[in-house]
Amino acid sequence: MTKDTSNQMWGGRFAAGPDAIMEAINASIGFDQRMAAQDIAGSRAHAAMLGQTGIITDNDADAIREGLLTVLSEIDSGNFAFSTALEDIHMNVEARLKDLVGEPAGRLHTGRSRNDQVATDFKLWVRDQMDAAISGINALIGALLAQAEAGADWVMPGFTHLQTAQPVTWGHHMMAYVEMFGRDMSRFEDARKRMNESPLGAAALAGTSFPIDRHMTAEALGFDRPAANSLDAVSDRDFALEFLAVSSICAMHLSRFAEELVIWSSAQFRFVTLSDRFSTGSSIMPQKKNPDAAELIRAKIGRIFGANTALMMVMKGLPLAYSKDMQEDKEQVFDAADNLMLALAAMQGMVKDMTANCDSLEAAAGSGFSTATDLADWLVRALNMPFRDAHHVTGSLVAMAESRNCDLPDLSLEDMKSVHEAITADVFEVLGVHNSVASRTSYGGTAPEQVKAQVALWKDRIS
Amino acid sequence: MTKDTSNQMWGGRFAAGPDAIMEAINASIGFDQRMAAQDIAGSRAHAAMLGQTGIITDNDADAIREGLLTVLSEIDSGNFAFSTALEDIHMNVEARLKDLVGEPAGRLHTGRSRNDQVATDFKLWVRDQMDAAISGINALIGALLAQAEAGADWVMPGFTHLQTAQPVTWGHHMMAYVEMFGRDMSRFEDARKRMNESPLGAAALAGTSFPIDRHMTAEALGFDRPAANSLDAVSDRDFALEFLAVSSICAMHLSRFAEELVIWSSAQFRFVTLSDRFSTGSSIMPQKKNPDAAELIRAKIGRIFGANTALMMVMKGLPLAYSKDMQEDKEQVFDAADNLMLALAAMQGMVKDMTANCDSLEAAAGSGFSTATDLADWLVRALNMPFRDAHHVTGSLVAMAESRNCDLPDLSLEDMKSVHEAITADVFEVLGVHNSVASRTSYGGTAPEQVKAQVALWKDRIS
Amino acid sequence: MTKDTSNQMWGGRFAAGPDAIMEAINASIGFDQRMAAQDIAGSRAHAAMLGQTGIITDNDADAIREGLLTVLSEIDSGNFAFSTALEDIHMNVEARLKDLVGEPAGRLHTGRSRNDQVATDFKLWVRDQMDAAISGINALIGALLAQAEAGADWVMPGFTHLQTAQPVTWGHHMMAYVEMFGRDMSRFEDARKRMNESPLGAAALAGTSFPIDRHMTAEALGFDRPAANSLDAVSDRDFALEFLAVSSICAMHLSRFAEELVIWSSAQFRFVTLSDRFSTGSSIMPQKKNPDAAELIRAKIGRIFGANTALMMVMKGLPLAYSKDMQEDKEQVFDAADNLMLALAAMQGMVKDMTANCDSLEAAAGSGFSTATDLADWLVRALNMPFRDAHHVTGSLVAMAESRNCDLPDLSLEDMKSVHEAITADVFEVLGVHNSVASRTSYGGTAPEQVKAQVALWKDRIS
Amino acid sequence: MTKDTSNQMWGGRFAAGPDAIMEAINASIGFDQRMAAQDIAGSRAHAAMLGQTGIITDNDADAIREGLLTVLSEIDSGNFAFSTALEDIHMNVEARLKDLVGEPAGRLHTGRSRNDQVATDFKLWVRDQMDAAISGINALIGALLAQAEAGADWVMPGFTHLQTAQPVTWGHHMMAYVEMFGRDMSRFEDARKRMNESPLGAAALAGTSFPIDRHMTAEALGFDRPAANSLDAVSDRDFALEFLAVSSICAMHLSRFAEELVIWSSAQFRFVTLSDRFSTGSSIMPQKKNPDAAELIRAKIGRIFGANTALMMVMKGLPLAYSKDMQEDKEQVFDAADNLMLALAAMQGMVKDMTANCDSLEAAAGSGFSTATDLADWLVRALNMPFRDAHHVTGSLVAMAESRNCDLPDLSLEDMKSVHEAITADVFEVLGVHNSVASRTSYGGTAPEQVKAQVALWKDRIS
Repeated sequence: MTKDTSNQMWGGRFAAGPDAIMEAINASIGFDQRMAAQDIAGSRAHAAMLGQTGIITDNDADAIREGLLTVLSEIDSGNFAFSTALEDIHMNVEARLKDLVGEPAGRLHTGRSRNDQVATDFKLWVRDQMDAAISGINALIGALLAQAEAGADWVMPGFTHLQTAQPVTWGHHMMAYVEMFGRDMSRFEDARKRMNESPLGAAALAGTSFPIDRHMTAEALGFDRPAANSLDAVSDRDFALEFLAVSSICAMHLSRFAEELVIWSSAQFRFVTLSDRFSTGSSIMPQKKNPDAAELIRAKIGRIFGANTALMMVMKGLPLAYSKDMQEDKEQVFDAADNLMLALAAMQGMVKDMTANCDSLEAAAGSGFSTATDLADWLVRALNMPFRDAHHVTGSLVAMAESRNCDLPDLSLEDMKSVHEAITADVFEVLGVHNSVASRTSYGGTAPEQVKAQVALWKDRIS
Repeated sequence: MTKDTSNQMWGGRFAAGPDAIMEAINASIGFDQRMAAQDIAGSRAHAAMLGQTGIITDNDADAIREGLLTVLSEIDSGNFAFSTALEDIHMNVEARLKDLVGEPAGRLHTGRSRNDQVATDFKLWVRDQMDAAISGINALIGALLAQAEAGADWVMPGFTHLQTAQPVTWGHHMMAYVEMFGRDMSRFEDARKRMNESPLGAAALAGTSFPIDRHMTAEALGFDRPAANSLDAVSDRDFALEFLAVSSICAMHLSRFAEELVIWSSAQFRFVTLSDRFSTGSSIMPQKKNPDAAELIRAKIGRIFGANTALMMVMKGLPLAYSKDMQEDKEQVFDAADNLMLALAAMQGMVKDMTANCDSLEAAAGSGFSTATDLADWLVRALNMPFRDAHHVTGSLVAMAESRNCDLPDLSLEDMKSVHEAITADVFEVLGVHNSVASRTSYGGTAPEQVKAQVALWKDRIS
Repeated sequence: MTKDTSNQMWGGRFAAGPDAIMEAINASIGFDQRMAAQDIAGSRAHAAMLGQTGIITDNDADAIREGLLTVLSEIDSGNFAFSTALEDIHMNVEARLKDLVGEPAGRLHTGRSRNDQVATDFKLWVRDQMDAAISGINALIGALLAQAEAGADWVMPGFTHLQTAQPVTWGHHMMAYVEMFGRDMSRFEDARKRMNESPLGAAALAGTSFPIDRHMTAEALGFDRPAANSLDAVSDRDFALEFLAVSSICAMHLSRFAEELVIWSSAQFRFVTLSDRFSTGSSIMPQKKNPDAAELIRAKIGRIFGANTALMMVMKGLPLAYSKDMQEDKEQVFDAADNLMLALAAMQGMVKDMTANCDSLEAAAGSGFSTATDLADWLVRALNMPFRDAHHVTGSLVAMAESRNCDLPDLSLEDMKSVHEAITADVFEVLGVHNSVASRTSYGGTAPEQVKAQVALWKDRIS
Repeated sequence: MTKDTSNQMWGGRFAAGPDAIMEAINASIGFDQRMAAQDIAGSRAHAAMLGQTGIITDNDADAIREGLLTVLSEIDSGNFAFSTALEDIHMNVEARLKDLVGEPAGRLHTGRSRNDQVATDFKLWVRDQMDAAISGINALIGALLAQAEAGADWVMPGFTHLQTAQPVTWGHHMMAYVEMFGRDMSRFEDARKRMNESPLGAAALAGTSFPIDRHMTAEALGFDRPAANSLDAVSDRDFALEFLAVSSICAMHLSRFAEELVIWSSAQFRFVTLSDRFSTGSSIMPQKKNPDAAELIRAKIGRIFGANTALMMVMKGLPLAYSKDMQEDKEQVFDAADNLMLALAAMQGMVKDMTANCDSLEAAAGSGFSTATDLADWLVRALNMPFRDAHHVTGSLVAMAESRNCDLPDLSLEDMKSVHEAITADVFEVLGVHNSVASRTSYGGTAPEQVKAQVALWKDRIS
């Protein structure tokens, strides 16, 4: 079981060689090979800088940079044999580079170490995911806007406690999620700006005595600036934690919408029909459509926030600078990122394809005396009643309607006057769900005109 | 003897039947009274707006605003009898207002509901905490800068894996935390900007038909603008989750520093002496100083991230708009905020008071051939050796020194030449911990000049 | 107006300097006074043992034991002035004891320390909560059994993906929760047994040289035995973590049932009517009943699992033996225990009071061709068709019924034969929801006879 | 260069439209193929039962059982082509079975569904992991006992707050972990018993009308009994959550020991030397040994408790019965189980190989007046002083020793008498670390005789 090959890098003393358990717990090449493109980009920038500053010759720099391109193409085409004995992506790439270009490969690692190298690779990877998340959210907002625009004046129940409260419009409900995902997008944007500092050249932890130019490599890799403290640059992972935290909040929003879609798809609600593509059927009950995609999206918050918990726990109480515990950072972020992008894409597809059942929505919107508040507001506005008194009068009218098994607009003016003398026929203008939503014209309210204005604003914003 | 305290707690009341249980689980006045000042500020702004827009008379508006000031002073002075029957802070305040000013009190609730009211109160409270966190971090950074400035050139070991790796400066180590807490501060600033939209006037969920002016109340309460979607405004709590997420990352940084202080205070390390004020002693072992404050700070990440977990779980899968589940948001945020502020204050006090033991630090910095990397870098630089070859030569020299039980600078030039002929006397200029740290002049490196430059920058930034 | 409340909270006190911060972060008397009864029980057992073993005189032991009873009665009656300067419950009790009985009080602490004392107190407290949880679950199971017995043959839809799958009985659904809560109960029982070892006499961490009898104190306090390793006894808190883990799983079960009750209470489902006592109404919509208690129960998992997360994080990576971090254990467990007991009591009350709407349940059970599986099974059983083929035939019949807008039992025998020749009139015996549930007689199936058998078994088990 | 890898990942496939997204989010064969052996075992048991009860013919049953063995051997030998279009392990196996045996394959699914099938497979898999964990803990306890036995009387410092408190023995410290891991083992044993009920035959959720014998399949698969409620059997996952909760507590214990090993390996402590096999070195600093394995073990709690968090969040608020969200259960448990087993094996290897540095341990044990408590206890015992007074006298003596820069045993009897007249020469018998540990003979104390007794007990227990 115990292999006898001594490790290439820190060989001599480990005569017996690390045993199989150690290799299993220690090697990272099984997962960090996902950062191959980032690793090679970082090394190419570093080599160019070493050449330009005269730390190595231009010839060596060119040889290294060419050789790295070859390594990348070997990896991209699947013709690269990753070696566990070489532990990680950095040593795998460097060893292959040595095969390809010989001695200059040994000069690449001048003025850097694996500690700043892995921090650079991982930051580049996470930055890409932030861009991917922003783009995924953008697409989802686009799909929501299309729904909102089409249904800016479709009425549906606005719920509190899953009980009908007041009528709202379909467009208004869609736009609520646009606001949430809009904030998620801005969180990713802020996080991206904050983390966009280059660790490269921080070396093991103390910086280096070589006259490197960290601004040059930072620029080449699209960073805004080099990180200002070398100890911090190699030992903090808050950019990964912020990615996970922001992703978790976004996943929370996805879970809420997914829950609504599951409930709305039930036979009891029938508010929406999901497309076949995002449902699964039953071989035996052809009318059955299970909202599998919505359920799986709802579940992703567990996985993503689980990753957040995991990395937070790993980082708790770690002294500076690098500790091997930090190797646990990557798999958590990889898995969370994959699942967030998948959930965003699935939600976008589902929203794009789904059909609102307008009749069910409108019928449900009107049930339960959902315009009672409109009546009370009318009493305040038209009769100058104090709000609390108006509520009392409305309660009596609702009780009357309920006892007659009718809705509020079905009461006659005489009925109304029997409860409160001063009521006039104008009251009927505010009853009924369409009147109700049309009247809520306060800024951000559910009135179709308000909804359309917000849709227009957002279309500009994401275009 | 081992009496069932849960029966003591709940049993008695629950004997009174289900109503007592319902009251116990339902009422929030026990904790939401902490938002009294915010509730009254929100109501005063709302009343002023109702007056200015003519929805209520100026007289009513003035009576309400005056009455609310009276309520606030009663609460501030402890002369207010909170009632559980009135459930929450909103109804407690409004009921007392009615006692004080009569009928106009009934007009205050026009064009709003408890849903937007509680969202407004809570946002104001959280916004205050964001300011408090920023100010607490600012003070902590000040204390770190003072330590960094004093010890910009004190040498200490830079650790990886808690093993000595390379010498760094005390100032450099302090500045690593300045970077971390600096990012924490910027996260709070971003979060504050993002959440600074007023929910007031969103009403129950759909907006209102009264001609309210939401921009006016937003401005009066220091918000940048009214929230653009009334459904979203009353049903999302991502501002609270972002506060908890950002606080958690900050607490993670605190836990790392606290862990270092605990280790550094041990008899084996003796790197720092904490002040008596932040330690506890033993009545029997007078030399003993337990780093209690550091340990308690280290633990706070549990509490704060626990609150983050709790609220994330509560919000998972909640359909729009308000659900009673969301009442669980406040206690989590209150507790996390209290503990973050306390931990920041304690850490600031500890840092301000602590004494670095320079002799221990320097002795530890030089042990373990910590300047071997400097030797290798010299070989690369002076002799143009490839980096990987230079490491091999250095390994041999370290082995020689180890076998003679001496340090690298104690080897003679002849010893050195016996391993590699081309070595010259210049090599001795890079050996020794002071030479080592002085040479690391790359941007962000540990050289005293770099550290001083960063201290100067940060003093400007936080002043 | 939006004054910095954190300054209000901490600022004033901290102006008094670091000492105030240290006291605020360090003292535990604010919360550990909840363990007063346990602390005094432990001290009384310890004093009795010291007397019986001759370590102190019988007179001293008696004086201490009497004095402690006095302290307890002072605390119980609210006539005890807790002092923050005395830090914790142990010192508060001992100081008061000294006032009461003088010199003998100084002999009580012989052969123990605060480390084993607090572990003992906390274990006794947690043990009580395990008993309380078991008793709360027992009562909830009782309420579920009453519902199951009443409705052993009421049919309702069995859902998968919130889509009707097959009819089940109300009793069967209730009994599913009985199984879940039954496992929760057995988890509490196992945890109680495992943790029931006395830490008392472990002293600071190493045991003691006094000839104490730890078996005697263990027995007096209801422990099964003394803990076998003094270091472990004072530094592990897995009993608290197991309490939180088990409580979290129980809260997960509560959250699932609560979610069902919220959905079932919606106007769209109308499966149940919750009692007024566990709902809240609206002053304006008298027919509205918000399932507040169910929502709050659903949320409790956040709080309880948040506490689990918090303590797990605190304990991560703590070296032996006692560290001050561990002081964070109590508030998490107190809060989780309070909320679990409350949620169990509220759920029991709600279940006891709720009314199943049998008509809605039965109507929903029959919709969506929910007995298609019964038809397929009949084809397998009666015609010896392979299962997968039978599914195909059933699919065709359902499609036919759907196209005619009728249910399966409404098809004629000829219709059936047109799809598959061999079908006979016997098939009608398995169609219809009552036939369906009656036929599922496999062990643990939904047939009323199976449900009644399980109800009978459980009534024995919990009585 | 900083190419969007998420587009690389998902973009290409998703360009193919929603179907690719749905397949990516929906299919489970990528991970559930790990349950192939369990799936086939379950199907073989089910087929045998169908044959014995006469539901299918013996010939069909035999053909199915033989065919399944062939499928298993194809999978075991790597000659099985898993198909994503077939979604999961169940359909992959069944489809291949149909290729192999034809029509009888279609009869296998009689009286069951994928819902009970996956619950059965997963329970069998988790049960195996519980056995693996028990066996891994057993081996680790064995390694700890060997260390404890060898060093039952080696003295070392007992720490509180990472400050020397009292001397303990190496064996005593090792045995503290034996107690912790012993409780972990008993938790796995309890969990295994609780979950050992067979879901097979619960069918989709309601049971079945076929005359299946669930007791027969339960017995064949090593279950203690069939699960008593079919709805519960297919929709609860508390067995997986309990596995994760118990694993998390075990990982917490591992993290504490790992932290100690990291600290003990530092140049400042030098308490232990880890073997080369469980360390990594530096090519340049040959004396350096990084405790990588210990650090990675310390980190595993994050991953395992992260999985616990993830699944808890997924299950929160799911209505009965099966929802697709539950498909997220497997990857979390797989990953947690893999990492727990790896961490247990690595810890066992490290403990087996590590060398305690007895001289460093003893020197550290005696520093800091660590036997002051012994002196105080002697005063109580020999002079009948109240404990609190004895502490005061001891404090004065320690202060005297400190001022003379000597240890307590170095004070003369005259010195001692100058502080308290009644002290006699006998006092010197309790000073010194060996006297101290030898005196702590209370049950569970650190005295070598107590440690040896516990070692003997445990050797019996785990043999």
